[in-house]
Amino acid sequence: MKPLEFKKKEKTLKLIDQTKLPLEITWVECKTYEDVAKAIKDMIVRGAPAIGISAAYGIAIGALAINTSSANIFFNELGIICKTIKNTRPTAVNLFWAVERIWEKAVSNKDKPISKIKDIILNEAILMEQEDTTINREIGRHGNPLIMEGWTILTHCNAGALATSDYGTALGVIRAAHESGKNIRVFADETRPYLQGARLTAWELMEYKIPVTLICDNMAGHFMKEGLINCVIVGADRIALNGDTANKIGTYSLSVLARENNIPFYVAAPVSTIDFSIESGDRIPIEERESEEITHIKGIQIAPRGVMVRNPAFDVTPNRYITAIITEKGVIYPPYDVNLPRLKL
Amino acid sequence: MKPLEFKKKEKTLKLIDQTKLPLEITWVECKTYEDVAKAIKDMIVRGAPAIGISAAYGIAIGALAINTSSANIFFNELGIICKTIKNTRPTAVNLFWAVERIWEKAVSNKDKPISKIKDIILNEAILMEQEDTTINREIGRHGNPLIMEGWTILTHCNAGALATSDYGTALGVIRAAHESGKNIRVFADETRPYLQGARLTAWELMEYKIPVTLICDNMAGHFMKEGLINCVIVGADRIALNGDTANKIGTYSLSVLARENNIPFYVAAPVSTIDFSIESGDRIPIEERESEEITHIKGIQIAPRGVMVRNPAFDVTPNRYITAIITEKGVIYPPYDVNLPRLKL
Repeated sequence: MKPLEFKKKEKTLKLIDQTKLPLEITWVECKTYEDVAKAIKDMIVRGAPAIGISAAYGIAIGALAINTSSANIFFNELGIICKTIKNTRPTAVNLFWAVERIWEKAVSNKDKPISKIKDIILNEAILMEQEDTTINREIGRHGNPLIMEGWTILTHCNAGALATSDYGTALGVIRAAHESGKNIRVFADETRPYLQGARLTAWELMEYKIPVTLICDNMAGHFMKEGLINCVIVGADRIALNGDTANKIGTYSLSVLARENNIPFYVAAPVSTIDFSIESGDRIPIEERESEEITHIKGIQIAPRGVMVRNPAFDVTPNRYITAIITEKGVIYPPYDVNLPRLKL
Repeated sequence: MKPLEFKKKEKTLKLIDQTKLPLEITWVECKTYEDVAKAIKDMIVRGAPAIGISAAYGIAIGALAINTSSANIFFNELGIICKTIKNTRPTAVNLFWAVERIWEKAVSNKDKPISKIKDIILNEAILMEQEDTTINREIGRHGNPLIMEGWTILTHCNAGALATSDYGTALGVIRAAHESGKNIRVFADETRPYLQGARLTAWELMEYKIPVTLICDNMAGHFMKEGLINCVIVGADRIALNGDTANKIGTYSLSVLARENNIPFYVAAPVSTIDFSIESGDRIPIEERESEEITHIKGIQIAPRGVMVRNPAFDVTPNRYITAIITEKGVIYPPYDVNLPRLKL
């Protein structure tokens, strides 16, 4: 279920085409950093951690192709590559985190031969991929005790293996609970407009033999009120220092409905999702995507021609609705403005 | 924009096929009461008031075709027709209200010649259609003062002309505000799985030249939080005596989100939507429809084969989230258990 694979010999990044899953399993081969940038933009690869790792490999592919013996030219080109990769999507902070990590690694080795710097960049990308899987298993391990035997867990969008290097964040917690022998069930929101829940999460959970029920986004509140949902777990695209969390559009509504129905609401994400540079969620830019994502499904028009559309890809859940944030360093409880900054240390 | 037309000469009911709107404008001609029952079941016609009127015409078509001079046989057949029509959809009370109104009208004239009873039944159906349009304009007149200049109104599903004989309930209020010269805008939830918002409401409002923005259901909360929504108006399928309201799935979530964001939440519906026989919404049966409505869009599969699905067509909004109920007899405020029963008098 790994969504990406770096081919060392070919120096290419293979990405499973998540726009076509689960009905078609096809792979896209990115041979240049521009290919990777386009794949991120077009959501061939999506999910904050997977975007971060793809970005790192994209920079590595770009760096390997720079043909110069001048360090100045090399770093100039590398800067252009980093900027292109950075400009693909504005909300997920893992993207910027990954780009900066690679950039700083390169700069801190700037006196080495260029061929050596290229190796260092590629090895850093490989390391980031390996770390991510370990991190997700740690998120699962920390989150598992929050899930009780017999519970039904609601999740939104896809924060599974497909959104990461492997194992998943929100689904990582669910998998850890399942693997530890708990009988659990999942309700998966279909997650309009892109249907990550219907297409990716439902498919992943069926593969793992975890019972999953698909619902429309507007049904989640009803099932909470009916007492069918015991907790909500979602991933995150960016977490501000006060715990405000940007995640897939619809997450905010779920958090309000969960609180109204006394249901715990958990965010599962690696520490790299925390943006230590911003105090609150007000400052997180929300990507607005094109209207065709809503007016058309698989190329078929479902709304009147010319209708005005708003299509924000994310929303921000204020910290007061979040019961806890599950990270690889442990479960973080409020007050987040005190407890989250400690993770930087 | 009338969704139905009774052809007196042909004794048939023409229904605009709402499963195909707005991309195809086709009409279905119902020649028998079974045709009408099937059209209601298949959602060719939908919307509580429109279902009620179609049911009345369906019974009339069935009654006209009963070939007997025996009153016993006539009423026996009429009972079967009424039962068939009644069994099409379980949640909207207007259906039962319409069937009972026709049945009681027939029974109260049982001593008249059968040909006369047939005329009385048909005339009652025609009267119900005419009354409905008047009622909707009254709902609009009473609701209009609740809408302020410059407001943006969120609506869910379709409670427009297409859901009634004409003019609409929730959209009737919006139209009345627009016609009285107020600059207003509408945000329309697409309303999964059946997409009545995207297909019907957006289309209707574009026809009326009322600015409309289409959003996915899971975006409504985000725009409320951002301060873009000034009030919510929805229709209703059944209102209990305490004000608990069954309406299209997703309505409950909107009501919670509206209260959380201090936005008034209005229900617009005719008095015939009030079920004077039930005390609270717990007793409203919720129709569960087939999974293909969610797993397929226009025949195209969008979810993994064999995935479990829940597909409740409605939910119940508890009275405490409803600011007021707009009826043809005026705007009803809490306490609903005191103020709603008065409407029966």
